Amino acid sequence: MTYCCGILVKDGLVMLADTRTNAGLDNISTFRKLHVFEQPGERVMALASAGNLAITQSVLTVLTDGIENPLTGEIETLMNAPSLFLAAQRIGRAVRTVSRIEGPALKAEDINFDVSFLFGGQIKGAPMRLFMVYPAGNFIACTTDTPYLQIGEHKYGKPVLDRAISYDVELYDALKIGLISMDSTMRSNLGVSPPIDALLLRNDACTAELNIRIEDDDPYFRALRRQWSEALRAAYQSIPRPPYGHSKA
Amino acid sequence: MTYCCGILVKDGLVMLADTRTNAGLDNISTFRKLHVFEQPGERVMALASAGNLAITQSVLTVLTDGIENPLTGEIETLMNAPSLFLAAQRIGRAVRTVSRIEGPALKAEDINFDVSFLFGGQIKGAPMRLFMVYPAGNFIACTTDTPYLQIGEHKYGKPVLDRAISYDVELYDALKIGLISMDSTMRSNLGVSPPIDALLLRNDACTAELNIRIEDDDPYFRALRRQWSEALRAAYQSIPRPPYGHSKA
Repeated sequence: MTYCCGILVKDGLVMLADTRTNAGLDNISTFRKLHVFEQPGERVMALASAGNLAITQSVLTVLTDGIENPLTGEIETLMNAPSLFLAAQRIGRAVRTVSRIEGPALKAEDINFDVSFLFGGQIKGAPMRLFMVYPAGNFIACTTDTPYLQIGEHKYGKPVLDRAISYDVELYDALKIGLISMDSTMRSNLGVSPPIDALLLRNDACTAELNIRIEDDDPYFRALRRQWSEALRAAYQSIPRPPYGHSKA
Repeated sequence: MTYCCGILVKDGLVMLADTRTNAGLDNISTFRKLHVFEQPGERVMALASAGNLAITQSVLTVLTDGIENPLTGEIETLMNAPSLFLAAQRIGRAVRTVSRIEGPALKAEDINFDVSFLFGGQIKGAPMRLFMVYPAGNFIACTTDTPYLQIGEHKYGKPVLDRAISYDVELYDALKIGLISMDSTMRSNLGVSPPIDALLLRNDACTAELNIRIEDDDPYFRALRRQWSEALRAAYQSIPRPPYGHSKA
């Protein structure tokens, strides 16, 4: 499994991804799922992936090598895309390319073409954006109403995002809430696990303000996990007992 | 969708179920999913169901009418089962009976035989127990290590159970935590909705101490939802900002 989330707030973008891959329960490895493409001061983009690792790696390779545009002859990559929207389209095209090559053999083995991406970033002079790309290569954009997107094992970590994230949240608070969401997921699903790759992009910097790997023994992350557990415990203890029946409320 | 949970603690059992059913997004109804079987002072049992409503209703009818034992000629129901374990077996048999009758036609329409049950209660002189019955009719029992079981849309409400429930939790606190888990699920999934049916069984009473329907406008449930939201907000606000990068922690 995998859990990735992207949070798009007024000051910028946070993206988080775990690093666990597993085939069944006993073939567990660490793979980077958050890939950063950067030309400092000009453009910074990141792609987080979930799903079948063979497919996501192939899509990444197709994107890095580039796809030739049959009309212009240009080799189209993320780094030369004129806009984030067109870059997202190129990801969709790469997904469809891999689907054409690998899809029939996977189908014959009854394996789903299971892949999804979060793609975010900024090109100088244009706004910061965040997209989610589906297995069919189509995609949606994140908006201010629900300023986050998730892929992979998204349910456990959604309640805290639903309650805590709004477009006005401070950028490092968004990172903190994303880490709490990651912690909730890790606590309930063994297939999501540290280290956590974290990226923080501030509007108009066009370079990563933060691009770090948070290890399991990171002192802040350990404290956050402990404090969140304690705070949750205090939270439900603070709510009165139900007044129904023979309760001594 | 549906969300049901059962929590088995040292003093007894709590079972909760929502009441929403939907076929697609626009055919939404209210159906009871928590069914109580009671002979006060002798036995009290409850069955919570998730999955295809046509299947769960058929299983319930088969169980209520009883299945003839080919060896003894006895009509076997939940009310005359010698033990909770044997009652759970009878549920499994009812599931298999319905599967035999309905399964092939559903398969022809590409509809999964999707059904699961939580079954809990006590027969006088024997311990309180809780089981989960799968679509194949097999089942597991709840133990003290993880003293809860869930069916239906279980992921959103699991983090709070994972953190808050232990076997030593007071019975009405277990009800409170169950309602928080229900609230987390309702907040993130439209397919789970009030009213909530709630059952509380205290050890050795062999009759329901509480068997109520909690409506959306129930004052305690409304307060719990508001307080939990506020407590969560306070909880993540109390955690310091990440110290990485340019954070003003």
